[in-house]
Amino acid sequence: MTTREECQTLDLEDELAPLRNEFLLNYDEIYLDGNSLGPVSRGVSSHVNDVVDHEWGKQLVRGWNDAGWMAMPTRIGDRIATLIGAHSGEVVVADTLTIALAKLIGGALKLRPDRHVIVTDVDNFHSDLYIAQAMSAYGGRPITVKAVSRGSLDEALNDDVALVMLTHVDFRNGEMLDLKGITEKAHDVGALMLWDFAHSTGAAPLNVEEAKVDFAAGCGYKYLNGGPGAPAYMYVRALWQGVIENPLPGWLGHARPFDFEPEFEPAKGVQSFVTSSPSILALSALDGALDVFDQTSMNAIRAKSLHLTDLFMELVEAKLPATFEIVTPREYAHRGSQVSMRHDESYGIIQALIERGVIGDFRAPDIARFGFTPLYLRFVDVYDAVEILADVMSSEAHRDPKFATRNAVT
Amino acid sequence: MTTREECQTLDLEDELAPLRNEFLLNYDEIYLDGNSLGPVSRGVSSHVNDVVDHEWGKQLVRGWNDAGWMAMPTRIGDRIATLIGAHSGEVVVADTLTIALAKLIGGALKLRPDRHVIVTDVDNFHSDLYIAQAMSAYGGRPITVKAVSRGSLDEALNDDVALVMLTHVDFRNGEMLDLKGITEKAHDVGALMLWDFAHSTGAAPLNVEEAKVDFAAGCGYKYLNGGPGAPAYMYVRALWQGVIENPLPGWLGHARPFDFEPEFEPAKGVQSFVTSSPSILALSALDGALDVFDQTSMNAIRAKSLHLTDLFMELVEAKLPATFEIVTPREYAHRGSQVSMRHDESYGIIQALIERGVIGDFRAPDIARFGFTPLYLRFVDVYDAVEILADVMSSEAHRDPKFATRNAVT
Repeated sequence: MTTREECQTLDLEDELAPLRNEFLLNYDEIYLDGNSLGPVSRGVSSHVNDVVDHEWGKQLVRGWNDAGWMAMPTRIGDRIATLIGAHSGEVVVADTLTIALAKLIGGALKLRPDRHVIVTDVDNFHSDLYIAQAMSAYGGRPITVKAVSRGSLDEALNDDVALVMLTHVDFRNGEMLDLKGITEKAHDVGALMLWDFAHSTGAAPLNVEEAKVDFAAGCGYKYLNGGPGAPAYMYVRALWQGVIENPLPGWLGHARPFDFEPEFEPAKGVQSFVTSSPSILALSALDGALDVFDQTSMNAIRAKSLHLTDLFMELVEAKLPATFEIVTPREYAHRGSQVSMRHDESYGIIQALIERGVIGDFRAPDIARFGFTPLYLRFVDVYDAVEILADVMSSEAHRDPKFATRNAVT
Repeated sequence: MTTREECQTLDLEDELAPLRNEFLLNYDEIYLDGNSLGPVSRGVSSHVNDVVDHEWGKQLVRGWNDAGWMAMPTRIGDRIATLIGAHSGEVVVADTLTIALAKLIGGALKLRPDRHVIVTDVDNFHSDLYIAQAMSAYGGRPITVKAVSRGSLDEALNDDVALVMLTHVDFRNGEMLDLKGITEKAHDVGALMLWDFAHSTGAAPLNVEEAKVDFAAGCGYKYLNGGPGAPAYMYVRALWQGVIENPLPGWLGHARPFDFEPEFEPAKGVQSFVTSSPSILALSALDGALDVFDQTSMNAIRAKSLHLTDLFMELVEAKLPATFEIVTPREYAHRGSQVSMRHDESYGIIQALIERGVIGDFRAPDIARFGFTPLYLRFVDVYDAVEILADVMSSEAHRDPKFATRNAVT
């Protein structure tokens, strides 16, 4: 079993270790919830202050030109493109994640007008299921959303499928799906492929170009650390640009927004997926949060991520044998950057951990979920977190009556 | 003609004058573009810093509960409700303005399933026209968008009209439409009424309750001063809550978002119009910007607004006779909080004014537009702005060749 001393050595040898200093973290906490909300980084504070005090504060409305606000959705999109293997000009940042998905679903359905089915995962994030269902009313023809289990995906694919829409890393168990293989299968039946990268972006290298992904959307506030409710991004493969239409068009996606023309004519490229003015404060926070990614590579992040989750699982099994059912896959190819464990008392366990400074989260009905962000987590953090978990379990702290009633959130 | 000394006296007697100190303004500028983007206020800086440094910074993911982030869309909505004559629980803040309109249009169309027409104003803000057209594909039946001139509105109303959708104050000429009268006419033919309050909210008192408005949306970044791209708000009359459906549903609008249920069940009230996580930074800036409205009333703001625009028009006509065609209505009932003037050389005039510290904006093809925000503008500002305008015109500064080519933005 790995010792604390060995963890300290791993930290000393860790090339990502200096990046921890870029983040605002509580000294007395181990933050294993960056998969829900990443922490503030130095880049965020400086960018946000700069917008408030200097750009908005001094330039006022001129900021749209002079501070480059108009270009932010595509400029920041280009920064995210480098993290997911996309080209410059294929990614734009705007809206919340579910609205971003709505745009891509609606646009995709129009590209396959003779087909009537959206295939998705019955265990997909529920908001993705809601918006798929809602957008199925948009196509001007009856569309059925078939939400199937992952094992039955192949059977569901046929030439009536317009769109396959999946989340790459499962929010509950952390399972990572086969990006390239599934995309290929969708294409084999003539369907389009839309991926939700909420739990992958910034956590693992993605190569949308190689996998020939048609469309994708991702989250700014998880592994990208862009702040609570940070804007989402949309990826539209170059092939589809000028072909796919944004079903929720607005003036900022117009070819000439300041000509105030009564008819919509889409701007070239992904800009047409911007609808109306996005929050510049929100964009600038995300912009600042991306600075830290310039100092490393997604491959280095992935290698440390797998090491951290390996270590966590090893220690949990060694120190707490037969206590938790680890539902996150062991195979690297199928593992995201989180570890999820099943236990009947997960809610109380998470609450007791939080009280002791180990921040994970509970996902109904019985999952204790821990996210591992290589940018700021140390190997000793993993060691200490498992020690504290073992202490909670042995002291039965999680059975404190105050944890009997589940709180509304987290 | 009003003299500068008289303007100074007006400022001394102005009960709103102290509020100017709440804003960050450039000493050497007269800002007449608050109808495009309001300035930073003290409340904004403190709220945003508090979110970054303490809430997000220290509470991290717990902020959703502990800092009240989950409740922000409706809590801030309640603050805006007091400005538009709505009840608590009828307003929610989320998304950009065009997306907010999309939700209300889509929802409204479902409430009139046997009708096939959306009536709007041919001079409506172009983004409103684009989204009306786009959402007409959503209803599962052929819907026609009839964009008519304001004078022909009555003729366009008949029992095939599902929805009348208008902007209350015209962005070009500043004309204010008859909120109550038009809403009544829409209702007389059984249509629903959706108002865009982008250029009214925070500029003039609105009474949606008295006018029996069904739905409305408004802008956070103009007269509310919530920052570039501040989130929009949606108003849904209590009568329609639980009846109208959000056509772009997401998990934060679910009755039990953290139960992760595969079927969408809307939350009670306007919360169901929140889709997925809104930017907390953007919301907190808007929250802070609303603080200044607690120190006055919409009636006081409106009285000063009319006085400021009266003064501007009086001075322009006195100092620059027969130079501009003022296209903003003189009648108080039909005037918003801006003055728009037509001149063939408006683009150069606005650029020359900006160079001299008077910030207005150009709206194609030939409008020079000046917004008057009573919260921070002085009567002497109006006087001085017109003096500088007179100087531009007499010196022909606007004919400088550098203003010959129109810039992309503003």
